[in-house]
Amino acid sequence: MKITTIKLEAPYLVFLGDVGSDLDAKTGLGIAWWRAERCAGQMRFAGCPVDCGLPDLSVAAALSAGVRTVIIGVAPTGGRIRASWLPPLIEFATAGVNIASGLHHKLGDFPQLVAAAREGGADLIDVRTPPSGLPCGLGKKRSGKRVLTVGTDCVVGKKYSALALHVELSRRGIDATFRATGQTGIMIAGEGIAIDAVPADFIAGAAEVLSPDNRPDHWDVIEGQGSLFHPSYAGVTLGLLHGSQPDALVLCHDASRREILDVADHYPIPPLEDFIDRVLAAARVTNPHCEFAGISVNTTTLNDADRSAYLANLEQRYKLPAVDPVATGMRRIADYLLRSRGSSRSAT
Amino acid sequence: MKITTIKLEAPYLVFLGDVGSDLDAKTGLGIAWWRAERCAGQMRFAGCPVDCGLPDLSVAAALSAGVRTVIIGVAPTGGRIRASWLPPLIEFATAGVNIASGLHHKLGDFPQLVAAAREGGADLIDVRTPPSGLPCGLGKKRSGKRVLTVGTDCVVGKKYSALALHVELSRRGIDATFRATGQTGIMIAGEGIAIDAVPADFIAGAAEVLSPDNRPDHWDVIEGQGSLFHPSYAGVTLGLLHGSQPDALVLCHDASRREILDVADHYPIPPLEDFIDRVLAAARVTNPHCEFAGISVNTTTLNDADRSAYLANLEQRYKLPAVDPVATGMRRIADYLLRSRGSSRSAT
Repeated sequence: MKITTIKLEAPYLVFLGDVGSDLDAKTGLGIAWWRAERCAGQMRFAGCPVDCGLPDLSVAAALSAGVRTVIIGVAPTGGRIRASWLPPLIEFATAGVNIASGLHHKLGDFPQLVAAAREGGADLIDVRTPPSGLPCGLGKKRSGKRVLTVGTDCVVGKKYSALALHVELSRRGIDATFRATGQTGIMIAGEGIAIDAVPADFIAGAAEVLSPDNRPDHWDVIEGQGSLFHPSYAGVTLGLLHGSQPDALVLCHDASRREILDVADHYPIPPLEDFIDRVLAAARVTNPHCEFAGISVNTTTLNDADRSAYLANLEQRYKLPAVDPVATGMRRIADYLLRSRGSSRSAT
Repeated sequence: MKITTIKLEAPYLVFLGDVGSDLDAKTGLGIAWWRAERCAGQMRFAGCPVDCGLPDLSVAAALSAGVRTVIIGVAPTGGRIRASWLPPLIEFATAGVNIASGLHHKLGDFPQLVAAAREGGADLIDVRTPPSGLPCGLGKKRSGKRVLTVGTDCVVGKKYSALALHVELSRRGIDATFRATGQTGIMIAGEGIAIDAVPADFIAGAAEVLSPDNRPDHWDVIEGQGSLFHPSYAGVTLGLLHGSQPDALVLCHDASRREILDVADHYPIPPLEDFIDRVLAAARVTNPHCEFAGISVNTTTLNDADRSAYLANLEQRYKLPAVDPVATGMRRIADYLLRSRGSSRSAT
């Protein structure tokens, strides 16, 4: 089944504009990390502190470098396109360079930009626009195997862990597909469904479409969204969890996080025991055999000794492999996943 | 804050078309029940077994009766408008009669209908279209008190119980507002947000907008949606639960239901113990003081003696008032709610 028709033409320019923090630039940073070979450079306004590690290009320099697509690499809270971004975007569109955005705010809402794209023959690509005709979830058991990343908050490495696990499985010759559910993932995979943009009734249905019936030993590695404990986004998380019918889950966490990000009141990150119990109980509504296969933690705030102790403690408490996907890699989670869920038992 | 601009002009014609069951006609049946005085009649195709108890009118008879709005009173799975419905709808629109629909499928997607409405000066009103500019949820504690109905499945009386509880509170002079979250509720209340039609990211935010800060002793009686155990719609349910920040919940159930409706595989209705534990755990993410205030059961399949025994058993097990909202009314739940949650403690 063709899920989306997103096609992004390289080379890219990663647009950062006036973004103030790495958290708000995760789209751009992710594309530069996973697809550096497709990126010609980045564009930052004066004073922007974020750096994707790509050459800084002006509009003129980007055009000389043959950039074919400008990717909006930032995702501020609320998903608004700022007026200050428009002048360079209009210049690019007028010159025939496509613009791809993953924000809620649509590129097509800016008449000047639409006119410029028409004049220049550029495409304005909103990767968050969901495919039309999504079905409601059916809850029907599908063939093939699925692993979903679930997080204790937003921005704890669910996408990164899924991408890294997919690389690790593919490296071993396992037949696996990364399934993107967010704007950056879609830009990296070239297809997917922005699950948080579908009408609420279709969340589980979209997740079912995203990971259709497959060969018994095929693994879908599905990018998680939000958190069951997040007061803004837990509905997205639960619908994705139910529709994915995961055989296995990878718990994603940030060792330094004490409270949920970007909410008005104080919401504590739940104890991992509670998190595991609640997520498994919810997952087993649609897949009674679901189990955790590992814990993937962002430990950038810890030194090497503290990281080792922290991960060893998690392993001992939860009887699961615990890794930092950057510092230690996903190898041990892939081992455990294939050992514990490698048969096609749960797919039949 | 103005939430929607839905204005439905009476008298109504409730359109049933070829609907095959009362479950799929809950919109029409609900409007006829709660707002009979605004309904001139119903329109059914030959063989349609559903009856709202209103006079059957042809197009000509409806026009003679001065009908101002045709309300699509059916909601088949998937929310599609059928081609067979179009001829009479086009006749009405041409004659200047407004058409209101709560389906996913938009009236504006039918060029012939749009042309007819333009010619006749009629409005095509999609009550499911959410207001633009909805925010993401903030999780910020709001003033005033809130009670939300939650169900063990779809179609177990969440809307009915909320409407009946609102009537019961209002009758006692309590300052209370019914907050509609679905198409029928919106048609009855005249405003609201179709929570299952908002983009998934904004479910909790829409629920926050729907029941804003209020006077400390004001009650919002919020119509629940779906079920935390429903494989298609649980995401909607959880987002609504988190955004509503309910002080109290009313458990809605159907005494005869053993499995979730309208899904491809067999999904059991959970034991009520599990349901209560899981819903409270989820609700307390945004309101740690949330408690159940009663159980509202559709007991139409039971005779009087069995109903009494069934409700008495629930009361004894769960230490909560248990009623049938039709057969016994919501009085005892209103009593319990005001006694247990009547102070403004939880609103400060």
